Amino acid sequence: MSDFLPTKPYKGTRDFYPEDMHLQKWMFNTLRQSIETFGYEEYDGPMLESFELYAAKTGEEIVENQLYWFTDRGDRKLALRPEMTPTMARMVAARANELPKPIRWYSIPNLWRYERPQRGRLREHWQLNVDLLGGDPLLADYEIIQLTQKILKDLGGQGKAKTLINNRRLINYFFSEALTLDAPTALKASKAVDARAKIGEEKYQIWLDEIGITQNQSQKIENFFNATFEEIKSEYPCEGTQELIQLFALIENNENLSPFCQFDPKIMRGLDYYTGMIFEVYDQSPDNNRSMFGGGRYDNLVGLFGKESISGVGFGMGDVTLKNFCETYKLFPDFGRTLDVYVTLTEESHKTYMHKVADLLRNLPSQPLKVATALTASKFGQQLKTADKLKAKFVAIIGEDEIQKQCVSLKNLLTGDQTQVKLEDLEKVNFNL
Amino acid sequence: MSDFLPTKPYKGTRDFYPEDMHLQKWMFNTLRQSIETFGYEEYDGPMLESFELYAAKTGEEIVENQLYWFTDRGDRKLALRPEMTPTMARMVAARANELPKPIRWYSIPNLWRYERPQRGRLREHWQLNVDLLGGDPLLADYEIIQLTQKILKDLGGQGKAKTLINNRRLINYFFSEALTLDAPTALKASKAVDARAKIGEEKYQIWLDEIGITQNQSQKIENFFNATFEEIKSEYPCEGTQELIQLFALIENNENLSPFCQFDPKIMRGLDYYTGMIFEVYDQSPDNNRSMFGGGRYDNLVGLFGKESISGVGFGMGDVTLKNFCETYKLFPDFGRTLDVYVTLTEESHKTYMHKVADLLRNLPSQPLKVATALTASKFGQQLKTADKLKAKFVAIIGEDEIQKQCVSLKNLLTGDQTQVKLEDLEKVNFNL
Repeated sequence: MSDFLPTKPYKGTRDFYPEDMHLQKWMFNTLRQSIETFGYEEYDGPMLESFELYAAKTGEEIVENQLYWFTDRGDRKLALRPEMTPTMARMVAARANELPKPIRWYSIPNLWRYERPQRGRLREHWQLNVDLLGGDPLLADYEIIQLTQKILKDLGGQGKAKTLINNRRLINYFFSEALTLDAPTALKASKAVDARAKIGEEKYQIWLDEIGITQNQSQKIENFFNATFEEIKSEYPCEGTQELIQLFALIENNENLSPFCQFDPKIMRGLDYYTGMIFEVYDQSPDNNRSMFGGGRYDNLVGLFGKESISGVGFGMGDVTLKNFCETYKLFPDFGRTLDVYVTLTEESHKTYMHKVADLLRNLPSQPLKVATALTASKFGQQLKTADKLKAKFVAIIGEDEIQKQCVSLKNLLTGDQTQVKLEDLEKVNFNL
Repeated sequence: MSDFLPTKPYKGTRDFYPEDMHLQKWMFNTLRQSIETFGYEEYDGPMLESFELYAAKTGEEIVENQLYWFTDRGDRKLALRPEMTPTMARMVAARANELPKPIRWYSIPNLWRYERPQRGRLREHWQLNVDLLGGDPLLADYEIIQLTQKILKDLGGQGKAKTLINNRRLINYFFSEALTLDAPTALKASKAVDARAKIGEEKYQIWLDEIGITQNQSQKIENFFNATFEEIKSEYPCEGTQELIQLFALIENNENLSPFCQFDPKIMRGLDYYTGMIFEVYDQSPDNNRSMFGGGRYDNLVGLFGKESISGVGFGMGDVTLKNFCETYKLFPDFGRTLDVYVTLTEESHKTYMHKVADLLRNLPSQPLKVATALTASKFGQQLKTADKLKAKFVAIIGEDEIQKQCVSLKNLLTGDQTQVKLEDLEKVNFNL
């Protein structure tokens, strides 16, 4: 037996059988439609990129520990893309002058990270990437926040997750002005705060000690990260706070949006390239209270390619988390019977008539039906079983009688109803159940 | 300048800007719809597979010279998939008993080959894969042949390419019985015949000499590869010929199919795993007379995984060749103006009203519109220019007058017509140009 090839996919990757594809396609097509109502256009790039594209701005941990990379036969160091933003920035930079601004782009690429597979973390996953470059940052930030909730609404999950908003400039102001930390210490402290929920209170305190945070500073951190927006406004007057005030003024003018958005000083975002507004969309269920996706404003990505900087804002949403969300709230439709008609064959000699009926059904002007024909002649009972396994809605039954009358008997597999229909009348039948 | 990252994609790969994606999506969605009318369902698998999956059945040349492979941090030898069939066979084998038969599957994966990039040959390309496993081989072969022409018809290219059909068993019979060659010599001779058009007459003759083909055998080869179907029937009675006779009997009963199919003894197909019917779809234009895509019947792929063999038939079609075909025959629609409405902003204070109008337009019950708002307040002339660059059909103009009357002025950018519409009447407007 050991000579046979294994049937399992590579660790941390998935096979998508048709029933899995139904879910994936439904999610992605819902996302596409939703995002396109805001005038965004889809783009795509290659799965392999030069290694150096990620060395520049992708987090160090990813490049050191999680990047799939190798050298090709021409000795080029290549990486399987671990995120889409560098590709997007490269493509924008390549046509920086020609592309009409603002740039509204999205993509749903597959990405690779060498991780120990666990719930929600796979080696190959798909990620929706939405980016908006150019324009007034305030209006652009607002649009992206709108989009986070538009997507949830179109998935059927309105109210199930909130968009929690913060601002990097406010955080920077807090660490440098209120705590008077230097930049490297501020970065370390922010990482500790970001990791707090994951690592637990004890490890968090040890971490702060190690960085050299005093008791007094630690108390200030406590106050800041539990502050209401009113407290922030009065105690931390800075550009970041101003941006938040303006953004929430727009949000509060939109009664369909404001119930689902709120300020949260604990939102930090791991990636180093964010420079302004940041946000995370949190599942509101008590059992599942965690970040579904997030993003923020970045300034300098296009500049890495020697082009004039364009400020942008965007987010990424992984397919695994999204699928969990859709399952938790039962948002997936019932795909039910996916084949419209199965055309039977009980006698070899009926083959040509079977093909004629099937072609008629496939080419009805009113409705493009999904039609499968029998591929083996067998008894009627056997044909019915096959039709049922193939999840057909209707069976088109062909016998001597039907051929003579140039008609077909249509059996509805859900109700069991059966009617004889002349071939020229097939277009009048309603095949939608 | 040398510190900046390069903006070009990796050699032999492509960036897909929105205008490229329009073409790609149109092609792939047309293929999807076309194939689904025959009851096929989409599947997908991981981009990385174990190296050994290809060592088994993929042609030697590909594995030796063209496979992208590397070892991961766990010392597993992995390959970027160069073709989809092994993944499909693995997935079928993994659920061999549960999957309802016949299996009608398709996929449009991206594939990787380390090639010197040239017209129609890239390192990363996409390929439609269609497979039908199980059932009576004759009916299954017929269905696949039907599909080749259904796809061309749905792309708008009916009659532009012919499906040329042959049979591996007939070729084997010719080499072993008529030429009395042993199996290795027969394989070499068949490769020479397959390469003939590419390498030219002189090299072809030298190749035959090297293999040890006699003058007499060479003449027989000449006769065979120029034979009509009538001659084949009388001179080469074998199972392969019988299969062809039955297949063409079905094809000739279908007047929509028979004009576009014909027997061609020169069709060989490179891949070693074909065992019965084989075909190639040839562009009929004299300037572009070449194979667009092809496929055939295979028997033993699932067996490699230790499961009961299921005979299958299928084909693969590359996106580069398909795009050339669509361009040659001008099959692509005019994607024209892709944004439905651009909503203007001439005064900062109109922001909230602008967002209100945009949201109304995005949520019209009759038609889900693509609507972009201005992201910077500017003079009306500037706004019009932006709308035009963003390829909008309509501009929704907002001024004091419109806000007071709770309406919007809609300007059709193609005709220049402008009308004022009350917000509650927006759903009555026809935005389809």
